Amino acid sequence: MHVLITGAAGMIGRKLAARLNKDGGLNGAPIDRLTLIDVAAPEPPAGFAGVADAAVSDLSAPGTAVKAVNGRPDVIFHLAGVVSGEAETDFDKGYRVNLDGTRALIEAIRLTGGGYKPKVIFSSSIAVFGAPFPDTIPDDFHQTPLTSYGTQKTISELLLADYTRRGFLEGVGIRLPSIVVRPGKPNKAASGFFSGIIREPLAGHEAILPVPDSVLHWHASPRSAVGFLIHAAGLSRAALGDRINLTMPGVCCTVGEQIEALRRVAGDKVAARIRRAPDELVARIVAGWPRRFEPKRALALGFTVERTFDDIIRAHIEDELGGRVAG
Amino acid sequence: MHVLITGAAGMIGRKLAARLNKDGGLNGAPIDRLTLIDVAAPEPPAGFAGVADAAVSDLSAPGTAVKAVNGRPDVIFHLAGVVSGEAETDFDKGYRVNLDGTRALIEAIRLTGGGYKPKVIFSSSIAVFGAPFPDTIPDDFHQTPLTSYGTQKTISELLLADYTRRGFLEGVGIRLPSIVVRPGKPNKAASGFFSGIIREPLAGHEAILPVPDSVLHWHASPRSAVGFLIHAAGLSRAALGDRINLTMPGVCCTVGEQIEALRRVAGDKVAARIRRAPDELVARIVAGWPRRFEPKRALALGFTVERTFDDIIRAHIEDELGGRVAG
Repeated sequence: MHVLITGAAGMIGRKLAARLNKDGGLNGAPIDRLTLIDVAAPEPPAGFAGVADAAVSDLSAPGTAVKAVNGRPDVIFHLAGVVSGEAETDFDKGYRVNLDGTRALIEAIRLTGGGYKPKVIFSSSIAVFGAPFPDTIPDDFHQTPLTSYGTQKTISELLLADYTRRGFLEGVGIRLPSIVVRPGKPNKAASGFFSGIIREPLAGHEAILPVPDSVLHWHASPRSAVGFLIHAAGLSRAALGDRINLTMPGVCCTVGEQIEALRRVAGDKVAARIRRAPDELVARIVAGWPRRFEPKRALALGFTVERTFDDIIRAHIEDELGGRVAG
Repeated sequence: MHVLITGAAGMIGRKLAARLNKDGGLNGAPIDRLTLIDVAAPEPPAGFAGVADAAVSDLSAPGTAVKAVNGRPDVIFHLAGVVSGEAETDFDKGYRVNLDGTRALIEAIRLTGGGYKPKVIFSSSIAVFGAPFPDTIPDDFHQTPLTSYGTQKTISELLLADYTRRGFLEGVGIRLPSIVVRPGKPNKAASGFFSGIIREPLAGHEAILPVPDSVLHWHASPRSAVGFLIHAAGLSRAALGDRINLTMPGVCCTVGEQIEALRRVAGDKVAARIRRAPDELVARIVAGWPRRFEPKRALALGFTVERTFDDIIRAHIEDELGGRVAG
C-alpha cells in the first residue's frame, strides 16, 4: 500500500503520518511506501520501515500534481490548503491553493488512466455552512459559505463528488469541526482562543478569553480528526453512495462548559489562569459560525468522536503533555 | 445603460434581447447599448434604437472575457453554457465552458477595477439538486448534484456568491425550472418530451411520451424565464442579503395533468396526438429529477410564474404560434 499525504507538514498531516506509522498499515494492508508533500518541508515519521519520500511542493504549481500522483498512490489524504484567515486576506492565493490545487490533483488522477482509481480523503470544514443557522444543522442543510475559504472547500467537495460519480477516483470529503486543543504557540486566528484557554493554562500560562461564556461551538480533538481520516479511507463506495461529503461528529459545548471541564480535569488553579477580555470583533466573527450539528450519516457510517469536552482535554494532556499538567 | 448578454444566440438569450428591446429599458433606465455574445452568431433584436454589438466569442478562450467586459456593461446576463447532456458526454468541454467560462467572466470583472461593479444575473438550474429528495424541496436543501452540469452550475453559484460578498460585483443566481414549451425541433434531451407533448400536437404532429402519466415535475414558460432574469436585475443587494442564489417558482404538475391541460386549451383532437411509448432509460433519468419546490425566498422577493399549466400552454400559443392551433 502506497499512501500520499498532501499538507503533510501541517499539524494534522504530521499526526496522521505518525499514526499510520504506529499502525503499520491502512485498511488491513501494510504501508510499504509513504509520500509526504507540503509547501514547507515535511518529515517522515521516525522509524518508518518502508520507503518514505518527503518533498517540498505546491500542488497548484504547473506539473506538480502530475508528479505527485506519478507513483500511483493507493490512498491520498489531501490536507493541503491555505487557512481561513489567509484565504480571506489573500484572495488570489486562497483560490490558487485551495481550489486550483485541489482541481490539479484530481485532474492529474483522472488523466493518469490505465485503471488508476485511488481513494482520495479530503479534509473539508464546517465552514461550508454560513449563518443564519437552525439551532441544530441537519445533514441536508444547504452550503452557503460566508468566507472565501468555505467557498473553496465547498467547491472542492463538489468536484470530488463529481469525479467520484464519474469513476475517476473514490472520494470522501470530511467536514472537520473546530479542532481543539491545537498544540503550539498562540496564533491570530479568530478561533485561536478555543485552544488557547485550555492549552495555555495547562502549560502554566495566562490565556485571554475574548468572547462570552455562553458561546456555543462544535469541537473535536486532533486525535479524533486523524481517526476520521483513517475511518474515511476504509469506507466502501457502496456504503457511501453518491453523497460522499460528510459532516463529522463533534462535541457541542459552551465556552463556560469548556472552562468547567478544565476545572474538573486540571483543578481550580489551572482554570483561574483564564482572563476575560471581551473583543467585539472576535465575538462578531464567532457569532457567524455554526454551533451544533446532527451528523446522522457520519454516525451511521461509524465515525466516532470524544463523548465530552473533558475527554478532549485529556487527549491533549496525553498526546502533547506526556500526561503532565503545570499545577 | 449598457447590457451584456452571454449565450445570446440561445433560446432564452434571444427572447431576453427581444424583451429588453420591447421594454426599451431596464430597472427604469433606457438601454443605449446592447452587447450580445455567443459561440454561435447572435442577432441584435430588430429595430433596436441604441448601439448593438453582436460577436461570436467563447468566454473560456484566453482573453475573451476581458474583452467582453471591456465596455464596462452595467448589467450582465450570463446565460452561456453547455447543456446537461453535452456536459455529461464531453467532460472537458463541460468544465471548460460551464466552470472556466464563468470564472473567466467574473475574474475579468474583478480585475477591471476603478470601482467597476456590475450586476451579474446568472442562469442556474434546479440540476444543482440531486436525488433522493423530500416531497417538497425547501430553500435550505443541500446541493448534491448528480450530473457534471449540475456540479458546474453549483460551483458557479458559489463563486458568484463569494465575488458578491467580497464586493467585486452584484450577483444573483436564478435556478430555472424545466422550461416548457421550448419552441423549435424535437431534440434528444431526456427532458425533451415535456415540451414535445405540447408543441408537436399543437403543430399538428404526433408526439411520443416515454414516461408514465404519473411523472411529476417543475415547470415555467420561456416567457417566465425571461421575466425571472429581468426581475433579478432589479433586486437590491440589501433585499438579497448574502444568499444570492434562488430557486425560482414553477408550476408543479404530472404529465397526466399536462395532457389534460392541453385537452382543455386545444381540444380532444390535439391531445389525441400524444402516443405512449414507454422508454425505461428516460423514465429512470427523469426519476432522479426534483419534482416540487417551496421557493419561499423567491416568492417573497416578488418573482412570479404562471399559475397553471394551462397558462404555460397559452403563453406558447401566443408567443410562438401567433394564437393559432392546428385543429
